[in-house]
Amino acid sequence: MHFTSEQRLDDGVLEREFTLGEIPGILWTPPSPSPSAAASAPAPLILLGHPGGLQKMYPRLVARARHAAADGFATATIELPGSGDRPRSAVAEQARADLRRALAAGEPVGGDIVDRLVLPLVDQAVPEWQAALDALLPLPGIGGPVGYSGGVIAIGTRLAVVEPRIKAAVLFAGSFVPAVMFEEARRVTIPLHVLLQWDDEGNDRQAALDLFDAFGSKEKTLHANLGGHTGVPQFAGDAAAQFFVRHLT
Amino acid sequence: MHFTSEQRLDDGVLEREFTLGEIPGILWTPPSPSPSAAASAPAPLILLGHPGGLQKMYPRLVARARHAAADGFATATIELPGSGDRPRSAVAEQARADLRRALAAGEPVGGDIVDRLVLPLVDQAVPEWQAALDALLPLPGIGGPVGYSGGVIAIGTRLAVVEPRIKAAVLFAGSFVPAVMFEEARRVTIPLHVLLQWDDEGNDRQAALDLFDAFGSKEKTLHANLGGHTGVPQFAGDAAAQFFVRHLT
Repeated sequence: MHFTSEQRLDDGVLEREFTLGEIPGILWTPPSPSPSAAASAPAPLILLGHPGGLQKMYPRLVARARHAAADGFATATIELPGSGDRPRSAVAEQARADLRRALAAGEPVGGDIVDRLVLPLVDQAVPEWQAALDALLPLPGIGGPVGYSGGVIAIGTRLAVVEPRIKAAVLFAGSFVPAVMFEEARRVTIPLHVLLQWDDEGNDRQAALDLFDAFGSKEKTLHANLGGHTGVPQFAGDAAAQFFVRHLT
Repeated sequence: MHFTSEQRLDDGVLEREFTLGEIPGILWTPPSPSPSAAASAPAPLILLGHPGGLQKMYPRLVARARHAAADGFATATIELPGSGDRPRSAVAEQARADLRRALAAGEPVGGDIVDRLVLPLVDQAVPEWQAALDALLPLPGIGGPVGYSGGVIAIGTRLAVVEPRIKAAVLFAGSFVPAVMFEEARRVTIPLHVLLQWDDEGNDRQAALDLFDAFGSKEKTLHANLGGHTGVPQFAGDAAAQFFVRHLT
Protein backbone atom coordinates (compact mmCIF):
# COMPACT_ATOMS: atom_id res chain seq x y z
CA MET A 1 0.00 0.00 0.00
CA HIS A 2 1.34 3.37 -1.05
CA PHE A 3 -0.11 6.72 -0.08
CA THR A 4 -0.26 9.01 -3.11
CA SER A 5 -1.84 12.16 -1.66
CA GLU A 6 -2.88 13.61 1.67
CA GLN A 7 -5.14 16.50 2.58
CA ARG A 8 -6.78 17.75 5.77
CA LEU A 9 -10.50 18.50 5.23
CA ASP A 10 -12.04 21.58 6.86
CA ASP A 11 -13.53 19.50 9.69
CA GLY A 12 -10.12 18.07 10.54
CA VAL A 13 -10.64 14.72 8.84
CA LEU A 14 -7.45 13.45 7.20
CA GLU A 15 -8.05 12.16 3.66
CA ARG A 16 -5.34 10.01 2.11
CA GLU A 17 -5.46 8.46 -1.35
CA PHE A 18 -3.55 5.24 -1.77
CA THR A 19 -2.90 2.42 -4.16
CA LEU A 20 -2.98 -1.18 -3.19
CA GLY A 21 -1.13 -2.81 -6.02
CA GLU A 22 -3.09 -1.53 -9.02
CA ILE A 23 -6.18 -0.68 -6.99
CA PRO A 24 -6.82 2.96 -6.01
CA GLY A 25 -8.44 3.68 -2.67
CA ILE A 26 -9.09 6.40 -0.10
CA LEU A 27 -8.64 6.37 3.66
CA TRP A 28 -10.27 8.91 5.98
CA THR A 29 -9.28 9.19 9.63
CA PRO A 30 -10.90 11.34 12.30
CA PRO A 31 -9.13 14.42 13.65
CA SER A 32 -6.49 13.57 16.24
CA PRO A 33 -8.06 13.35 19.66
CA SER A 34 -7.18 15.98 22.23
CA PRO A 35 -3.82 15.48 23.99
CA SER A 36 -5.62 14.21 27.08
CA ALA A 37 -7.13 11.42 24.95
CA ALA A 38 -3.79 10.58 23.35
CA ALA A 39 -3.78 7.12 24.81
CA SER A 40 -7.27 6.35 23.57
CA ALA A 41 -8.03 3.20 21.62
CA PRO A 42 -7.45 3.17 17.83
CA ALA A 43 -10.44 4.11 15.69
CA PRO A 44 -12.67 1.25 14.52
CA LEU A 45 -12.67 1.00 10.72
CA ILE A 46 -15.71 1.05 8.44
CA LEU A 47 -15.28 -0.11 4.85
CA LEU A 48 -17.39 2.07 2.55
CA GLY A 49 -18.97 0.00 -0.21
CA HIS A 50 -20.21 1.62 -3.43
CA PRO A 51 -21.34 0.57 -6.92
CA GLY A 52 -18.02 1.36 -8.59
CA GLY A 53 -16.48 4.56 -9.90
CA LEU A 54 -14.63 6.25 -7.02
CA GLN A 55 -14.44 9.62 -8.75
CA LYS A 56 -18.16 9.79 -9.52
CA MET A 57 -19.02 8.47 -6.05
CA TYR A 58 -16.57 10.76 -4.23
CA PRO A 59 -19.07 13.42 -3.02
CA ARG A 60 -21.28 10.81 -1.38
CA LEU A 61 -18.36 8.80 -0.05
CA VAL A 62 -16.68 11.79 1.59
CA ALA A 63 -19.99 12.80 3.17
CA ARG A 64 -20.33 9.32 4.68
CA ALA A 65 -16.67 9.45 5.78
CA ARG A 66 -17.14 12.81 7.55
CA HIS A 67 -20.28 11.55 9.29
CA ALA A 68 -18.45 8.42 10.45
CA ALA A 69 -15.41 10.45 11.57
CA ALA A 70 -17.68 12.55 13.78
CA ASP A 71 -18.59 9.29 15.54
CA GLY A 72 -14.91 8.39 15.90
CA PHE A 73 -14.61 5.96 12.99
CA ALA A 74 -11.94 5.65 10.34
CA THR A 75 -13.32 4.79 6.90
CA ALA A 76 -11.77 3.42 3.73
CA THR A 77 -12.84 2.44 0.27
CA ILE A 78 -11.25 0.93 -2.82
CA GLU A 79 -12.20 0.97 -6.51
CA LEU A 80 -14.18 -2.03 -7.74
CA PRO A 81 -12.86 -4.36 -10.46
CA GLY A 82 -13.86 -3.04 -13.90
CA SER A 83 -14.75 0.46 -12.63
CA GLY A 84 -12.97 3.82 -12.74
CA ASP A 85 -9.56 3.43 -14.37
CA ARG A 86 -9.36 -0.28 -13.68
CA PRO A 87 -9.35 -2.71 -16.64
CA ARG A 88 -12.74 -3.76 -17.96
CA SER A 89 -13.76 -7.40 -18.15
CA ALA A 90 -15.40 -8.47 -21.41
CA VAL A 91 -17.85 -10.73 -19.56
CA ALA A 92 -18.97 -7.97 -17.20
CA GLU A 93 -19.23 -5.39 -20.01
CA GLN A 94 -21.42 -7.75 -22.01
CA ALA A 95 -23.61 -8.43 -18.96
CA ARG A 96 -23.85 -4.71 -18.25
CA ALA A 97 -24.96 -4.04 -21.82
CA ASP A 98 -27.56 -6.82 -21.56
CA LEU A 99 -28.78 -5.35 -18.28
CA ARG A 100 -29.14 -1.87 -19.79
CA ARG A 101 -30.99 -3.30 -22.76
CA ALA A 102 -33.40 -5.22 -20.52
CA LEU A 103 -34.05 -2.18 -18.30
CA ALA A 104 -34.53 0.12 -21.31
CA ALA A 105 -36.99 -2.35 -22.82
CA GLY A 106 -38.84 -2.61 -19.51
CA GLU A 107 -38.17 -6.35 -19.47
CA PRO A 108 -37.52 -8.37 -16.33
CA VAL A 109 -33.78 -8.75 -15.70
CA GLY A 110 -32.96 -12.40 -16.20
CA GLY A 111 -31.07 -14.34 -13.56
CA ASP A 112 -28.36 -15.19 -16.09
CA ILE A 113 -27.60 -11.48 -16.61
CA VAL A 114 -27.38 -10.93 -12.86
CA ASP A 115 -25.14 -13.97 -12.44
CA ARG A 116 -22.79 -12.88 -15.24
CA LEU A 117 -22.64 -9.32 -13.90
CA VAL A 118 -22.40 -9.88 -10.15
CA LEU A 119 -20.80 -13.25 -9.44
CA PRO A 120 -17.40 -12.53 -11.06
CA LEU A 121 -17.46 -9.08 -9.43
CA VAL A 122 -18.00 -10.61 -5.98
CA ASP A 123 -15.38 -13.30 -6.60
CA GLN A 124 -12.78 -10.68 -7.54
CA ALA A 125 -13.73 -7.82 -5.22
CA VAL A 126 -14.00 -9.68 -1.92
CA PRO A 127 -10.34 -10.79 -1.74
CA GLU A 128 -9.37 -7.22 -2.66
CA TRP A 129 -11.34 -5.77 0.25
CA GLN A 130 -9.72 -8.37 2.49
CA ALA A 131 -6.28 -7.34 1.21
CA ALA A 132 -7.22 -3.73 1.94
CA LEU A 133 -8.04 -4.76 5.51
CA ASP A 134 -4.66 -6.48 5.79
CA ALA A 135 -2.96 -3.24 4.76
CA LEU A 136 -5.15 -0.79 6.69
CA LEU A 137 -5.52 -2.39 10.10
CA PRO A 138 -1.78 -2.21 11.01
CA LEU A 139 -1.70 1.57 10.36
CA PRO A 140 -1.26 3.72 13.47
CA GLY A 141 -4.57 4.97 14.92
CA ILE A 142 -6.67 2.38 13.11
CA GLY A 143 -7.97 -0.78 14.69
CA GLY A 144 -10.81 -3.20 14.85
CA PRO A 145 -13.58 -4.07 15.02
CA VAL A 146 -14.44 -3.54 11.37
CA GLY A 147 -17.79 -2.69 9.80
CA TYR A 148 -18.91 -2.83 6.17
CA SER A 149 -21.30 -0.17 4.95
CA GLY A 150 -23.10 0.21 1.64
CA GLY A 151 -23.48 -1.67 -1.60
CA VAL A 152 -22.83 -3.75 -3.62
CA ILE A 153 -25.02 -5.86 -1.30
CA ALA A 154 -23.71 -9.11 -2.80
CA ILE A 155 -20.15 -8.03 -1.94
CA GLY A 156 -21.24 -7.10 1.59
CA THR A 157 -23.00 -10.42 1.97
CA ARG A 158 -19.98 -12.45 0.86
CA LEU A 159 -17.65 -10.40 3.08
CA ALA A 160 -19.97 -10.93 6.05
CA VAL A 161 -19.67 -14.69 5.52
CA VAL A 162 -15.96 -15.08 4.81
CA GLU A 163 -14.26 -12.21 6.69
CA PRO A 164 -14.28 -12.70 10.46
CA ARG A 165 -12.79 -9.25 11.14
CA ILE A 166 -16.09 -7.69 9.98
CA LYS A 167 -18.38 -7.59 13.03
CA ALA A 168 -21.41 -5.67 11.74
CA ALA A 169 -22.71 -4.45 8.38
CA VAL A 170 -25.03 -1.81 7.00
CA LEU A 171 -26.18 -3.15 3.64
CA PHE A 172 -27.87 -1.07 0.97
CA ALA A 173 -30.49 -3.19 -0.81
CA GLY A 174 -30.01 -1.36 -4.05
CA SER A 175 -28.46 -3.81 -6.49
CA PHE A 176 -29.13 -7.20 -7.97
CA VAL A 177 -28.31 -10.36 -6.08
CA PRO A 178 -27.65 -13.67 -7.82
CA ALA A 179 -30.03 -16.41 -6.71
CA VAL A 180 -27.16 -18.61 -5.56
CA MET A 181 -26.16 -15.95 -3.03
CA PHE A 182 -29.36 -16.43 -1.01
CA GLU A 183 -27.71 -19.58 0.32
CA GLU A 184 -24.73 -17.49 1.44
CA ALA A 185 -27.12 -14.97 3.02
CA ARG A 186 -28.41 -17.76 5.28
CA ARG A 187 -24.86 -18.23 6.59
CA VAL A 188 -24.48 -14.59 7.66
CA THR A 189 -24.55 -14.31 11.45
CA ILE A 190 -23.25 -10.79 12.22
CA PRO A 191 -25.70 -7.98 13.14
CA LEU A 192 -27.15 -6.41 10.00
CA HIS A 193 -28.85 -3.10 9.30
CA VAL A 194 -30.39 -3.16 5.83
CA LEU A 195 -31.44 0.03 4.04
CA LEU A 196 -34.14 -0.26 1.40
CA GLN A 197 -35.34 2.62 -0.72
CA TRP A 198 -39.00 1.74 -1.24
CA ASP A 199 -39.21 3.25 -4.74
CA ASP A 200 -35.74 2.31 -6.01
CA GLU A 201 -36.00 2.55 -9.80
CA GLY A 202 -33.52 -0.10 -10.82
CA ASN A 203 -34.21 -2.63 -8.12
CA ASP A 204 -36.73 -5.31 -7.25
CA ARG A 205 -38.38 -4.58 -3.89
CA GLN A 206 -39.61 -8.13 -3.41
CA ALA A 207 -36.14 -9.54 -4.06
CA ALA A 208 -34.74 -7.17 -1.44
CA LEU A 209 -37.35 -8.31 1.09
CA ASP A 210 -36.63 -11.95 0.26
CA LEU A 211 -32.91 -11.37 0.78
CA PHE A 212 -33.56 -9.67 4.13
CA ASP A 213 -35.67 -12.67 5.09
CA ALA A 214 -32.85 -15.04 4.09
CA PHE A 215 -30.10 -13.51 6.23
CA GLY A 216 -29.25 -15.84 9.09
CA SER A 217 -28.35 -13.11 11.58
CA LYS A 218 -30.13 -13.09 14.94
CA GLU A 219 -30.09 -9.29 14.90
CA LYS A 220 -31.20 -7.88 11.59
CA THR A 221 -33.18 -4.72 10.97
CA LEU A 222 -34.71 -3.45 7.76
CA HIS A 223 -35.11 0.31 7.39
CA ALA A 224 -37.30 1.07 4.41
CA ASN A 225 -37.75 4.69 3.41
CA LEU A 226 -39.76 6.40 0.75
CA GLY A 227 -37.80 7.57 -2.24
CA GLY A 228 -35.54 6.47 -5.05
CA HIS A 229 -32.09 4.94 -5.17
CA THR A 230 -30.12 7.99 -4.10
CA GLY A 231 -32.81 9.46 -1.84
CA VAL A 232 -31.78 7.93 1.49
CA PRO A 233 -33.02 10.51 4.02
CA GLN A 234 -30.62 12.13 6.46
CA PHE A 235 -32.34 10.50 9.45
CA ALA A 236 -31.81 7.06 7.88
CA GLY A 237 -28.10 7.78 7.60
CA ASP A 238 -28.10 8.83 11.25
CA ALA A 239 -29.79 5.57 12.25
CA ALA A 240 -27.21 3.56 10.33
CA ALA A 241 -24.47 5.50 12.11
CA GLN A 242 -26.04 4.67 15.46
CA PHE A 243 -26.06 1.00 14.50
CA PHE A 244 -22.27 1.12 14.08
CA VAL A 245 -21.83 3.05 17.32
CA ARG A 246 -23.79 0.29 19.04
CA HIS A 247 -21.82 -2.56 17.51
CA LEU A 248 -18.28 -1.29 16.93
CA THR A 249 -17.56 0.88 19.98
CA MET B 1 -62.57 13.90 32.98
CA HIS B 2 -62.02 12.93 36.61
CA PHE B 3 -58.71 11.95 38.16
CA THR B 4 -59.15 8.91 40.39
CA SER B 5 -55.61 8.31 41.62
CA GLU B 6 -52.21 9.90 41.52
CA GLN B 7 -48.75 8.57 42.23
CA ARG B 8 -45.20 9.76 41.65
CA LEU B 9 -43.03 7.01 40.09
CA ASP B 10 -39.43 6.59 41.25
CA ASP B 11 -38.08 8.47 38.24
CA GLY B 12 -40.27 11.47 39.02
CA VAL B 13 -42.92 10.74 36.41
CA LEU B 14 -46.42 11.64 37.64
CA GLU B 15 -48.96 8.88 36.92
CA ARG B 16 -52.61 9.80 37.15
CA GLU B 17 -55.52 7.45 36.50
CA PHE B 18 -58.67 9.06 35.23
CA THR B 19 -62.11 8.33 33.87
CA LEU B 20 -63.53 10.02 30.82
CA GLY B 21 -67.21 9.29 31.20
CA GLU B 22 -67.19 5.50 31.57
CA ILE B 23 -63.77 5.09 29.99
CA PRO B 24 -60.74 4.51 32.23
CA GLY B 25 -57.42 6.01 31.24
CA ILE B 26 -53.94 6.89 32.48
CA LEU B 27 -51.93 10.09 32.06
CA TRP B 28 -48.17 10.27 32.62
CA THR B 29 -46.35 13.59 32.78
CA PRO B 30 -42.60 14.17 32.99
CA PRO B 31 -41.02 15.41 36.23
CA SER B 32 -41.41 19.17 36.72
CA PRO B 33 -38.62 20.99 34.98
CA SER B 34 -36.06 22.80 37.09
CA PRO B 35 -37.18 26.21 38.44
CA SER B 36 -35.06 27.95 35.83
CA ALA B 37 -37.07 26.14 33.15
CA ALA B 38 -40.41 27.00 34.75
CA ALA B 39 -41.49 29.09 31.81
CA SER B 40 -40.70 26.33 29.33
CA ALA B 41 -43.24 25.20 26.77
CA PRO B 42 -45.86 22.62 27.75
CA ALA B 43 -44.94 18.98 27.05
CA PRO B 44 -46.04 17.55 23.70
CA LEU B 45 -48.49 14.67 24.18
CA ILE B 46 -48.16 11.15 22.81
CA LEU B 47 -51.23 8.91 22.80
CA LEU B 48 -50.20 5.35 23.63
CA GLY B 49 -52.17 2.85 21.57
CA HIS B 50 -52.51 -0.78 22.65
CA PRO B 51 -54.57 -3.87 21.78
CA GLY B 52 -56.99 -3.48 24.71
CA GLY B 53 -56.82 -4.45 28.38
CA LEU B 54 -55.13 -1.61 30.27
CA GLN B 55 -54.38 -3.73 33.31
CA LYS B 56 -52.69 -6.50 31.34
CA MET B 57 -50.86 -3.96 29.18
CA TYR B 58 -49.81 -1.76 32.12
CA PRO B 59 -46.17 -2.95 32.45
CA ARG B 60 -45.42 -2.27 28.79
CA LEU B 61 -47.39 0.99 28.76
CA VAL B 62 -45.63 2.43 31.79
CA ALA B 63 -42.25 1.49 30.30
CA ARG B 64 -43.13 3.38 27.13
CA ALA B 65 -44.43 6.30 29.21
CA ARG B 66 -41.19 6.52 31.22
CA HIS B 67 -39.12 6.40 28.04
CA ALA B 68 -41.20 9.18 26.51
CA ALA B 69 -41.06 11.25 29.70
CA ALA B 70 -37.27 11.10 29.59
CA ASP B 71 -37.55 12.81 26.19
CA GLY B 72 -39.89 15.44 27.65
CA PHE B 73 -43.21 14.00 26.45
CA ALA B 74 -46.48 13.56 28.31
CA THR B 75 -48.27 10.32 27.43
CA ALA B 76 -51.82 9.12 27.86
CA THR B 77 -53.90 6.07 27.08
CA ILE B 78 -57.51 4.98 27.42
CA GLU B 79 -59.19 1.58 27.54
CA LEU B 80 -60.54 0.28 24.24
CA PRO B 81 -64.24 -0.45 23.71
CA GLY B 82 -65.03 -4.03 24.75
CA SER B 83 -61.78 -4.50 26.71
CA GLY B 84 -60.89 -4.42 30.40
CA ASP B 85 -64.00 -3.65 32.47
CA ARG B 86 -65.83 -2.03 29.57
CA PRO B 87 -69.02 -3.68 28.24
CA ARG B 88 -68.53 -6.36 25.61
CA SER B 89 -70.14 -6.14 22.18
CA ALA B 90 -71.83 -9.32 20.96
CA VAL B 91 -70.64 -8.70 17.39
CA ALA B 92 -67.03 -8.23 18.43
CA GLU B 93 -67.08 -11.23 20.78
CA GLN B 94 -68.41 -13.43 17.98
CA ALA B 95 -65.76 -12.13 15.59
CA ARG B 96 -63.06 -12.70 18.22
CA ALA B 97 -64.24 -16.29 18.71
CA ASP B 98 -64.23 -16.84 14.94
CA LEU B 99 -60.71 -15.39 14.76
CA ARG B 100 -59.43 -17.68 17.50
CA ARG B 101 -61.04 -20.66 15.80
CA ALA B 102 -59.43 -19.79 12.45
CA LEU B 103 -55.99 -19.27 14.03
CA ALA B 104 -56.23 -22.47 16.07
CA ALA B 105 -57.18 -24.40 12.93
CA GLY B 106 -54.32 -22.82 11.02
CA GLU B 107 -56.80 -21.42 8.52
CA PRO B 108 -56.42 -18.07 6.78
CA VAL B 109 -58.32 -15.35 8.62
CA GLY B 110 -61.18 -14.30 6.37
CA GLY B 111 -61.72 -10.65 5.54
CA ASP B 112 -65.26 -10.85 6.96
CA ILE B 113 -63.87 -11.80 10.38
CA VAL B 114 -61.40 -8.89 10.28
CA ASP B 115 -64.13 -6.48 9.20
CA ARG B 116 -66.50 -7.60 11.97
CA LEU B 117 -63.74 -7.42 14.57
CA VAL B 118 -61.94 -4.23 13.62
CA LEU B 119 -64.31 -1.85 11.83
CA PRO B 120 -66.76 -1.37 14.73
CA LEU B 121 -63.78 -1.05 17.08
CA VAL B 122 -62.25 1.72 14.96
CA ASP B 123 -65.63 3.47 14.57
CA GLN B 124 -66.15 3.53 18.33
CA ALA B 125 -62.60 4.03 19.57
CA VAL B 126 -61.49 6.92 17.36
CA PRO B 127 -64.05 9.46 18.68
CA GLU B 128 -63.11 8.36 22.21
CA TRP B 129 -59.42 9.09 21.61
CA GLN B 130 -60.45 12.45 20.17
CA ALA B 131 -62.55 13.15 23.27
CA ALA B 132 -59.54 12.24 25.38
CA LEU B 133 -57.49 14.81 23.46
CA ASP B 134 -60.20 17.43 24.11
CA ALA B 135 -59.91 16.72 27.83
CA LEU B 136 -56.13 16.32 28.06
CA LEU B 137 -54.77 19.19 26.00
CA PRO B 138 -56.18 21.97 28.21
CA LEU B 139 -54.47 20.51 31.32
CA PRO B 140 -51.60 22.60 32.71
CA GLY B 141 -48.19 21.51 31.42
CA ILE B 142 -49.60 19.59 28.46
CA GLY B 143 -49.73 20.93 24.93
CA GLY B 144 -49.42 20.03 21.33
CA PRO B 145 -48.29 18.82 18.93
CA VAL B 146 -49.72 15.36 19.48
CA GLY B 147 -48.33 12.00 18.41
CA TYR B 148 -49.98 8.59 18.26
CA SER B 149 -47.86 5.57 19.11
CA GLY B 150 -48.64 1.88 18.90
CA GLY B 151 -51.45 -0.37 17.83
CA VAL B 152 -54.24 -1.02 16.93
CA ILE B 153 -52.83 0.08 13.56
CA ALA B 154 -56.32 0.53 12.09
CA ILE B 155 -57.16 2.95 14.92
CA GLY B 156 -53.90 4.83 14.38
CA THR B 157 -54.57 5.00 10.65
CA ARG B 158 -58.08 6.41 11.09
CA LEU B 159 -56.85 8.91 13.69
CA ALA B 160 -54.08 10.04 11.35
CA VAL B 161 -56.71 10.79 8.71
CA VAL B 162 -59.42 12.45 10.79
CA GLU B 163 -57.59 14.13 13.70
CA PRO B 164 -55.57 17.18 12.61
CA ARG B 165 -54.03 17.65 16.07
CA ILE B 166 -52.00 14.45 15.50
CA LYS B 167 -48.84 15.47 13.67
CA ALA B 168 -46.84 12.22 13.55
CA ALA B 169 -47.45 8.56 14.32
CA VAL B 170 -45.49 5.46 15.22
CA LEU B 171 -47.66 2.56 14.09
CA PHE B 172 -47.15 -1.05 15.15
CA ALA B 173 -47.96 -3.37 12.25
CA GLY B 174 -49.16 -6.08 14.58
CA SER B 175 -52.88 -6.44 14.02
CA PHE B 176 -55.36 -7.09 11.25
CA VAL B 177 -56.46 -4.31 8.94
CA PRO B 178 -59.78 -4.40 7.08
CA ALA B 179 -59.35 -4.17 3.30
CA VAL B 180 -61.51 -1.05 3.14
CA MET B 181 -59.02 0.77 5.34
CA PHE B 182 -56.29 0.62 2.68
CA GLU B 183 -58.20 3.44 0.99
CA GLU B 184 -57.96 5.45 4.21
CA ALA B 185 -54.26 4.66 4.44
CA ARG B 186 -53.76 6.41 1.09
CA ARG B 187 -55.22 9.59 2.63
CA VAL B 188 -52.69 9.68 5.50
CA THR B 189 -50.20 12.50 4.99
CA ILE B 190 -48.46 12.91 8.37
CA PRO B 191 -44.94 11.47 8.90
CA LEU B 192 -45.13 7.79 9.82
CA HIS B 193 -42.72 5.40 11.49
CA VAL B 194 -44.01 1.83 11.13
CA LEU B 195 -42.68 -0.99 13.29
CA LEU B 196 -42.95 -4.51 11.92
CA GLN B 197 -41.92 -7.62 13.81
CA TRP B 198 -40.71 -9.89 11.02
CA ASP B 199 -41.85 -13.11 12.71
CA ASP B 200 -45.06 -11.87 14.29
CA GLU B 201 -47.07 -15.03 15.01
CA GLY B 202 -50.58 -13.69 14.61
CA ASN B 203 -49.99 -11.31 11.77
CA ASP B 204 -49.63 -11.38 8.01
CA ARG B 205 -46.26 -9.91 6.97
CA GLN B 206 -47.31 -9.30 3.38
CA ALA B 207 -50.44 -7.44 4.49
CA ALA B 208 -48.29 -5.23 6.70
CA LEU B 209 -45.95 -4.46 3.80
CA ASP B 210 -48.93 -3.72 1.55
CA LEU B 211 -50.35 -1.34 4.15
CA PHE B 212 -47.00 0.44 4.47
CA ASP B 213 -46.96 0.77 0.69
CA ALA B 214 -50.47 2.24 0.74
CA PHE B 215 -49.82 5.06 3.21
CA GLY B 216 -49.91 8.39 1.38
CA SER B 217 -47.34 10.11 3.60
CA LYS B 218 -44.32 11.68 1.93
CA GLU B 219 -42.19 10.68 4.91
CA LYS B 220 -42.75 7.10 5.93
CA THR B 221 -40.23 4.65 7.31
CA LEU B 222 -40.60 0.95 7.96
CA HIS B 223 -38.45 -0.57 10.69
CA ALA B 224 -38.61 -4.35 10.49
CA ASN B 225 -36.89 -6.34 13.20
CA LEU B 226 -36.41 -10.00 13.81
CA GLY B 227 -38.64 -11.51 16.45
CA GLY B 228 -42.22 -12.12 17.48
CA HIS B 229 -45.08 -9.83 18.39
CA THR B 230 -43.76 -8.66 21.77
CA GLY B 231 -40.07 -8.86 20.88
CA VAL B 232 -39.51 -5.28 19.70
CA PRO B 233 -35.81 -4.70 20.49
CA GLN B 234 -34.73 -1.87 22.76
CA PHE B 235 -32.91 -0.09 19.92
CA ALA B 236 -36.11 -0.10 17.84
CA GLY B 237 -37.95 1.61 20.72
CA ASP B 238 -35.13 4.16 20.86
CA ALA B 239 -35.45 4.84 17.12
CA ALA B 240 -39.20 5.37 17.47
CA ALA B 241 -38.53 7.80 20.32
CA GLN B 242 -36.09 9.73 18.11
CA PHE B 243 -38.77 9.94 15.42
CA PHE B 244 -41.06 11.73 17.89
CA VAL B 245 -38.25 14.01 19.07
CA ARG B 246 -37.68 14.93 15.42
CA HIS B 247 -41.33 15.65 14.68
CA LEU B 248 -42.92 16.86 17.91
CA THR B 249 -40.23 19.06 19.48
